Amino acid sequence: MTVVGVLGAGQLGRMLALAGYPLGLRFAFFDENAEAPAGQLGDLTVAGWDDHAALDAFADAVDLVTYEFENIPVAAAERLAKHVPVFPPPKALDVAQDRLKEKTLFRRLDIGTAPFVTVDTRDDLERAVAAIGVPSVLKTRTQGYDGKGQRVLRRGDDLDPAFAAIGGRPLILEGFVPFERELSIIAARSRTGETAYWPLVENVHRDGILRLSIAPAAAGNGALADQAAAIAAKTLEALDYVGVLAIELFQHEGRLLANEMAPRVHNSGHWTIEGAKTSQFENHLRAVLGFPLGATDAIGVSAMVNLIGETPDPAGLLGIEGAHLHLYGKPARPGRKLGHVTLVEPGRAALESALARVATLVDEPTLSR
Amino acid sequence: MTVVGVLGAGQLGRMLALAGYPLGLRFAFFDENAEAPAGQLGDLTVAGWDDHAALDAFADAVDLVTYEFENIPVAAAERLAKHVPVFPPPKALDVAQDRLKEKTLFRRLDIGTAPFVTVDTRDDLERAVAAIGVPSVLKTRTQGYDGKGQRVLRRGDDLDPAFAAIGGRPLILEGFVPFERELSIIAARSRTGETAYWPLVENVHRDGILRLSIAPAAAGNGALADQAAAIAAKTLEALDYVGVLAIELFQHEGRLLANEMAPRVHNSGHWTIEGAKTSQFENHLRAVLGFPLGATDAIGVSAMVNLIGETPDPAGLLGIEGAHLHLYGKPARPGRKLGHVTLVEPGRAALESALARVATLVDEPTLSR
Repeated sequence: MTVVGVLGAGQLGRMLALAGYPLGLRFAFFDENAEAPAGQLGDLTVAGWDDHAALDAFADAVDLVTYEFENIPVAAAERLAKHVPVFPPPKALDVAQDRLKEKTLFRRLDIGTAPFVTVDTRDDLERAVAAIGVPSVLKTRTQGYDGKGQRVLRRGDDLDPAFAAIGGRPLILEGFVPFERELSIIAARSRTGETAYWPLVENVHRDGILRLSIAPAAAGNGALADQAAAIAAKTLEALDYVGVLAIELFQHEGRLLANEMAPRVHNSGHWTIEGAKTSQFENHLRAVLGFPLGATDAIGVSAMVNLIGETPDPAGLLGIEGAHLHLYGKPARPGRKLGHVTLVEPGRAALESALARVATLVDEPTLSR
Repeated sequence: MTVVGVLGAGQLGRMLALAGYPLGLRFAFFDENAEAPAGQLGDLTVAGWDDHAALDAFADAVDLVTYEFENIPVAAAERLAKHVPVFPPPKALDVAQDRLKEKTLFRRLDIGTAPFVTVDTRDDLERAVAAIGVPSVLKTRTQGYDGKGQRVLRRGDDLDPAFAAIGGRPLILEGFVPFERELSIIAARSRTGETAYWPLVENVHRDGILRLSIAPAAAGNGALADQAAAIAAKTLEALDYVGVLAIELFQHEGRLLANEMAPRVHNSGHWTIEGAKTSQFENHLRAVLGFPLGATDAIGVSAMVNLIGETPDPAGLLGIEGAHLHLYGKPARPGRKLGHVTLVEPGRAALESALARVATLVDEPTLSR
């Protein structure tokens, strides 16, 4: 029986395992945190990413390795790759961990992005703002997620406090794109080179954290879908990618700009569990195992609402007809992703009604947009 | 976090856990077999059903108990019920374990069955055949499943070998019903008394083992569905039942006769994972926890094909568009249920085409009926 080793044992690893047991797979996880919730669903090695003995023992116990978390040191993935296949390739991890490398790749592939300049010193920042202007966003090149490590610059007075807050590490200044909406494309590429793309997803963030995804995105077919698929296809190809890749996009005047990518299953793809013929989790596993990819067509229209910081009463949520509850088995903490709810309806009007019912139980002002 | 204790750790327990983790539940299993496949998905206590210390420790470690296997000694369930809630009630287990008690209950509830007579001795058998005639079926009252412990009597010469084969235990002789088809109804009743019924399922057996289920059954709406729901409703009520209950039915001249019941999730309900708004596994858990039940509507038309004795190449099955593979993580053995494949299509013509593709990979002559 094939044992899939997963680096990281958070909710994404948990959902990978839930999708993978029906394929006859077994799972082993590696995480620094003994309470990581995927540990409920498979063996959990608790060790640091620099613990060579633990990494080597993990490699011996599994048939291949994948990851559910992109801030794993590339050296750990490369060490494992000497013993067992590691997908997506560590190169993808390396690029995705650094906003400069990521945006440089997009630029090289002729994929539109916000203008960007690297910033290492306070003087660099001055020059960068002179080149790009304000509003713009100063970001750490690495370790940023869910809106962490970012400062918006609106005027000259903002430079000092922003640099004081996040300077001293490699930074990047990005021009602020006055986008109409945020979209994402979730794509899969198999070891055999087969690719598949789910319909475009529209995403609503608050405080840098994804709150709501709607899929397929309204008016997200035709030319827009083709543009997104071309962006994903070029990126998959350039990285010789294997697995599921998510690319966050800004839509601005009919054009898609790539914001960032995640070399893993992605929060904006959770709707695929019930809302698509094959989920992102199942296709990620099919891809890394070299199995044929499953169909990615949407079944109706879906909304995914994240449960952040606190979990509403499950009985209340389950009382909403058609609400699919996904709890991650994590203790509550402010700002933490604890679960999500997916609604699948035949059309947008029915979806709006169902979302309104969820909004009575979940603190979700963006639902009323 | 609620820990659900499950008696039995076979594939049904495994699929309960896969449905239950997203509800934020944790699972502990109790089984005599250390290799039981649900053990991959939760704590597994390996002990005999008469091991009081192990049962008591199990009761201490869980918040409530359910079962995935109906041949658990009632005494074990009753012992557990002194410590923790046990659903379905042990009374249902007691009735379902004995074909005589089961059919007597159906008769008392004015639910049609094949004619039946209890048989303890060879003389009883003579009298029973005189009363019921041939063809008829001699069955052990207890421990029968998947066609085991049954002999068909077609003429007087069959009595001696049949009694020699399965006599010496309490038996029942049942009249042979020349049914047009076999159906089943899967029903759920919550701790709150709420009930739900999935659409009627049509089942095809071979050698006493379920091979294929189609749901909703063709021409299975209207009066037929009402008849089935009434049968299920009376049974749920009579047993003060909590959880999912399956009743196997024969359709004969427009009338439904109850054949047997299973006080648990059922093989003929596996299609609900992808083919219904809420699966039998999720609703079983909602029912035993007292959560609202989920909608049981079908999504399109589904077929579930059992994988018996050997597992076809997963890559081949996954190459069939729309095929959902479910492997149980069990070693192959002749006659053993190793997994199933579910197909969900918008209509019956598309379903027939998809089934034909599955039939090229799975030894399944009954698909061509």
